[in-house]
Amino acid sequence: MKPYNCDNRPVGIFDSGLGGLTVVRAVQKALPHENIIYLGDTARVPYGNRSPETVRAFALDDVEFLRKWNVKAIVAACNTVSALALDTIRERIGGCPLTGVILPGAHAAISAKGKRIAVLGTRGTIDSKAYEIEILRENPSYFMQGIACPLFVPLAEEGITNGSIVQGVLELYLKPLKQTPPDIVLLGCTHYPLFREAIADYLPSTVTIIDSAHSTAAYLAQMLKENQMEASPEQAGFAQYYATDLTPGFDRIARRFLNASNTDSVTIRLASPFP
Amino acid sequence: MKPYNCDNRPVGIFDSGLGGLTVVRAVQKALPHENIIYLGDTARVPYGNRSPETVRAFALDDVEFLRKWNVKAIVAACNTVSALALDTIRERIGGCPLTGVILPGAHAAISAKGKRIAVLGTRGTIDSKAYEIEILRENPSYFMQGIACPLFVPLAEEGITNGSIVQGVLELYLKPLKQTPPDIVLLGCTHYPLFREAIADYLPSTVTIIDSAHSTAAYLAQMLKENQMEASPEQAGFAQYYATDLTPGFDRIARRFLNASNTDSVTIRLASPFP
Repeated sequence: MKPYNCDNRPVGIFDSGLGGLTVVRAVQKALPHENIIYLGDTARVPYGNRSPETVRAFALDDVEFLRKWNVKAIVAACNTVSALALDTIRERIGGCPLTGVILPGAHAAISAKGKRIAVLGTRGTIDSKAYEIEILRENPSYFMQGIACPLFVPLAEEGITNGSIVQGVLELYLKPLKQTPPDIVLLGCTHYPLFREAIADYLPSTVTIIDSAHSTAAYLAQMLKENQMEASPEQAGFAQYYATDLTPGFDRIARRFLNASNTDSVTIRLASPFP
Repeated sequence: MKPYNCDNRPVGIFDSGLGGLTVVRAVQKALPHENIIYLGDTARVPYGNRSPETVRAFALDDVEFLRKWNVKAIVAACNTVSALALDTIRERIGGCPLTGVILPGAHAAISAKGKRIAVLGTRGTIDSKAYEIEILRENPSYFMQGIACPLFVPLAEEGITNGSIVQGVLELYLKPLKQTPPDIVLLGCTHYPLFREAIADYLPSTVTIIDSAHSTAAYLAQMLKENQMEASPEQAGFAQYYATDLTPGFDRIARRFLNASNTDSVTIRLASPFP
């Protein structure tokens, strides 16, 4: 690539809370030269049980914060925002490349083998049928099933990702899938990659598990390439993390989602409050 | 009581979300003639993992909303607010009678038999040591123990209050109490009365269980009496419920906390958004 086609501006990634850090982790792995500005709207998390109007207003606040950093592309690493607010964001940011996590996840599921897809997500994501709509738009012959798993988020934040409570929750939510296994299970929430192993162990080995965090990183890579916006290969990508509220447990949760070791430095800065 | 000593203005009760409805339920039972205005700040719930400054700012917004209804007394039916923001609220409202849920719960625990008290609450409440401080201030010879039970809130909101998952969570949080039982277990979170039975079954029968919702209703009754602010005994108390955000699951959760039957009418109105 010729140097004058490089674009070293950062990529902006945001989520209602810290769950989107699983997307940051996937992006860092796929695109090690990209700088990242992350915003978690932790003062107003969770978005999943708020009304569509409120989610759209919050998402615009998040986007305005990222735009101050002159970001070249925006990733809405939040399923609720991806389901409800992408059009609203696109109106605001014009031609700036934008992706949510739903379209990339849906496309990855379509690329996998099989026609029976079960989507796991928060109640808001499942009720919105956002993954179903994307997939059925591509091919209406898919057999879709949505399962709301609201307890996964608090369990992930508590660091409980295996053991008897998780087994009980898997029984509660996924028993029908064990009895009648789909071809593909799509993890439609940024917190759920932490349960990937437990879910894989619980379900028959014939089930393919896809998580939207990795699919989104691959989609972002393609989007940057098409727009000739890739960072210089000489650049060592750096991430800056912001949150709208800071509390003592944050470092622990952030490390868990980034899969950072205890010795890695992960500094989360306080974003100035929204108007 | 002479009629000219009656005060039929409503009591204002607020919480970060809908958990405070367990306090409303206790107040309705103890004070059937009182009108109640309830506000749940559901657009910004939960407060428990937010910084003290943010909790104080949110609490003042909530109080301002209630004051528009000319309330005669205010109950902060939220442990986080009770732990962090009562002084801030008192500065704002002057002589208007105010109570949180911590002092009443602490006093009820002191009135019970025994010196070994275990407090269960959210991480924020437990870290604040608010119950411990109140109780030890009265009598420093008490033996206090605090246990954060963060998964109880999402379980309560999912309506999961017994069964194998709850047993797993009780094992996780309360095993030390089973091994070395305290005299008193104080339920220091508005959601926890829903687990009262499961907790009682799990722990030895020698343990006295106290919940701050009932203690707070008794405290409010006393406060109104002392201030000659009781409602007329001819008045049939009526409650109006407000929330700062409305979502489909609300009715279900509200009914659960109010212990309302499916045929009871529980209307939650949208409060105009905060500035």
